Amino acid sequence: MERMLNKESKNNLGKPVRVAGWVNSRRDHGGIVFLDLRDGSGILQIVAKPDLVSGVREEYALEIEGDIQKRPDKMVNPELETGEIELKAQKVKVLAKADPLPFDLRELNLTLPRLLDYRPLTLRNRKIRAIFKVEEEIISSFRKTLKDQSFSEFESPAIVPATAEGGAEVFHIDYFNHDAYLSQSPQLYKQIMVGAFEKVFTVTHVFRAEPSVTTRHLCEYISLDMEMGFIDSWEDLMDLGDNLIKNIFSAVENNCQKELNLFKASLPKASLKIPRMKMREAQEIIFKRTKRDHRKEIDLDPEDEKEICEYAKEKYGSELIFITHYPTAKRPFYTFPDPKNPEYTLSFDLLCRGLEVVTGGQRINDYKKLTENVKKWGNEVKNFKFYLQSFKYGMPPEGGFALGAERITKQILGLDNIREASLFPRDMIRIDQRLSVLQPKKKEKK
Amino acid sequence: MERMLNKESKNNLGKPVRVAGWVNSRRDHGGIVFLDLRDGSGILQIVAKPDLVSGVREEYALEIEGDIQKRPDKMVNPELETGEIELKAQKVKVLAKADPLPFDLRELNLTLPRLLDYRPLTLRNRKIRAIFKVEEEIISSFRKTLKDQSFSEFESPAIVPATAEGGAEVFHIDYFNHDAYLSQSPQLYKQIMVGAFEKVFTVTHVFRAEPSVTTRHLCEYISLDMEMGFIDSWEDLMDLGDNLIKNIFSAVENNCQKELNLFKASLPKASLKIPRMKMREAQEIIFKRTKRDHRKEIDLDPEDEKEICEYAKEKYGSELIFITHYPTAKRPFYTFPDPKNPEYTLSFDLLCRGLEVVTGGQRINDYKKLTENVKKWGNEVKNFKFYLQSFKYGMPPEGGFALGAERITKQILGLDNIREASLFPRDMIRIDQRLSVLQPKKKEKK
Repeated sequence: MERMLNKESKNNLGKPVRVAGWVNSRRDHGGIVFLDLRDGSGILQIVAKPDLVSGVREEYALEIEGDIQKRPDKMVNPELETGEIELKAQKVKVLAKADPLPFDLRELNLTLPRLLDYRPLTLRNRKIRAIFKVEEEIISSFRKTLKDQSFSEFESPAIVPATAEGGAEVFHIDYFNHDAYLSQSPQLYKQIMVGAFEKVFTVTHVFRAEPSVTTRHLCEYISLDMEMGFIDSWEDLMDLGDNLIKNIFSAVENNCQKELNLFKASLPKASLKIPRMKMREAQEIIFKRTKRDHRKEIDLDPEDEKEICEYAKEKYGSELIFITHYPTAKRPFYTFPDPKNPEYTLSFDLLCRGLEVVTGGQRINDYKKLTENVKKWGNEVKNFKFYLQSFKYGMPPEGGFALGAERITKQILGLDNIREASLFPRDMIRIDQRLSVLQPKKKEKK
Repeated sequence: MERMLNKESKNNLGKPVRVAGWVNSRRDHGGIVFLDLRDGSGILQIVAKPDLVSGVREEYALEIEGDIQKRPDKMVNPELETGEIELKAQKVKVLAKADPLPFDLRELNLTLPRLLDYRPLTLRNRKIRAIFKVEEEIISSFRKTLKDQSFSEFESPAIVPATAEGGAEVFHIDYFNHDAYLSQSPQLYKQIMVGAFEKVFTVTHVFRAEPSVTTRHLCEYISLDMEMGFIDSWEDLMDLGDNLIKNIFSAVENNCQKELNLFKASLPKASLKIPRMKMREAQEIIFKRTKRDHRKEIDLDPEDEKEICEYAKEKYGSELIFITHYPTAKRPFYTFPDPKNPEYTLSFDLLCRGLEVVTGGQRINDYKKLTENVKKWGNEVKNFKFYLQSFKYGMPPEGGFALGAERITKQILGLDNIREASLFPRDMIRIDQRLSVLQPKKKEKK
């Protein structure tokens, strides 16, 4: 008999089937045992005589043969896809035993470090799995939206010879006795790709040697990056971003309702056109609302981002807002200066519920200006010679942006910490296990 | 006027349009100039008076307004999607100039090192672009086939705390004064994911510090990895692989005919069921055919792989063959031993036109056996404690395989060197530029 998925079993009332899965829970009722059997497709209730399942604990992997029968009316569970049926076990085979669980896996109530220490196990909890179903949907709808608009997908390398964004927050690799680094951004490669394919995107891992522990930074995260040539204006990019983020939200709303319910989450509300505001204007508004005077700062801090999102929600009914025209001093060398005032750039961030989730802008496409800027930002031109070819041989006006997949997941589901939205989060104290546990001696050396 | 893509222009006969793109070629005919204008969608022929395009060279980025008109009959180009029309330029705007090209970009005739030194420019050649269109299709059909079979996609981390496959060919990262490495394989993570999602796949970058320069190895490559639980037999995996590779070939055949034609390439022929043969049997056949006695070797070498593919083609009419039952000594610690003879494993490679393109097998799912093997293979158990949780708490029989995206591209198109199938190939002497050019001092230190 072919194995059947749990969710398919509901179409097989009265028939014998073979299913397989993990014991999600066990309830003993005198002469009868109920198991919730979990497989990749969902839960199926098993009814078994005690001797058939003696010793079987939660997370045992079982294969069960039996007949699908209707549940008694009062036992129907409307929350379950298979809630009207159950399987009466005839034969039970233990595929793998499980040690007794160190905590209640159904109603997880752990600190974040413990949740992550036990990631391989806690991933089996349905609420945790829901996070990554939502994230998969976000990535998948990003890809679909851009493919539908004739963008080409490419793979951006992780090993790079120089640092694109500058700054010290870069991981060094021993590369055959040479210096190499982990990519902080696919920026240079997506621009090169524009020169050949015009409209491109990539789903890629980027790496930041973030020397602090915050709730919104990871040392390795998923960047959803797009870049396109022949733009008429940098506002084209915000138009595309506006449409893209709404497509992502729709996809999550349509395909992840169950998952959203588990978190009592709803998608961020966005106005018909997401509001756009200059950074200096935002600082002015924040000053008026809070008396916090950040009007000379070159960036918004986390408190500012929260405050201006509050304002956008009150004023425009939008939980999203574009902040534009960041100072040239704050942005990387390739950012296009505003022709009206070159101290500011044609760049933007998209804030969502108080957190930056997208960053982008127009890029300098003029070969000479770009080469000058490489130097002005303190880089050696020879390290960028490869990249600069794209501009030496004709690059049209272009730009792009990047979304942080974990940040969007966090903001949609209302998670407290970005680590919850990363399957295997890396930070300065953890790679899977806590580094202090894994490598006590090295740690002491520091 | 909105910009129009070149390929859309053919539906606008007699109408004024605005297009934009790169000058693919320029031909001067007395009082008239023909430009082939290239954008992301294809080529459009421009007819212009000389003064409108004076100084315009190949790879200039232009914006052109004018009217779409029918070409004279004798000028029709059936090889071009827009071959029956042309644009009569009224207004030409230079968006970006281009330096004179260092070589003929249309008919590339470069050595591989020079092709790669100039990658940002050579990527604009249509034959080079075709390679990456095929690769995109391979990845996309891998994803689609598995999603259609209810697999979940996940993102596997690149930074890892220990090496899964063993061996010295691993890149070391300075990680906040700790040791970390670049992932050689998503193996451990996809197994962890099986514990939670049952059927999973990932498109991920893996890294090998390959200390030699061959035509089939890269230091960073794209691995298409799948893994699934509740298999009845390890042969399930080969069945799925057989179906998957054929789906990939079909997708390339259906969607990349133009690209295949550029390489005069056809898809590898496969028999209805791809033949399966034990490694020892293959060595026996090779010995009979060539008198090369590799019957005691623990693996096939490149010559062997070519020879046994020749045999499969002659005997079964198949350019693909599964080689099975590799010796335990040759495989990683998690490989499932054959119960009938534990010196061999329930593992397989899929060879295609003389090259291994897939590798996989069943994994040990028993917690105790797996823990013992971690030690037996010379690893410290504490480094695998995180991973081992998945088995401690119930892991069903499972297995999976991985496809190398660049290798499949290479074999389909008949490329000589795998570097041609990597956008930005990394090897021991190159990251974008040649390392000897980039960092002459460090190189000397070695």
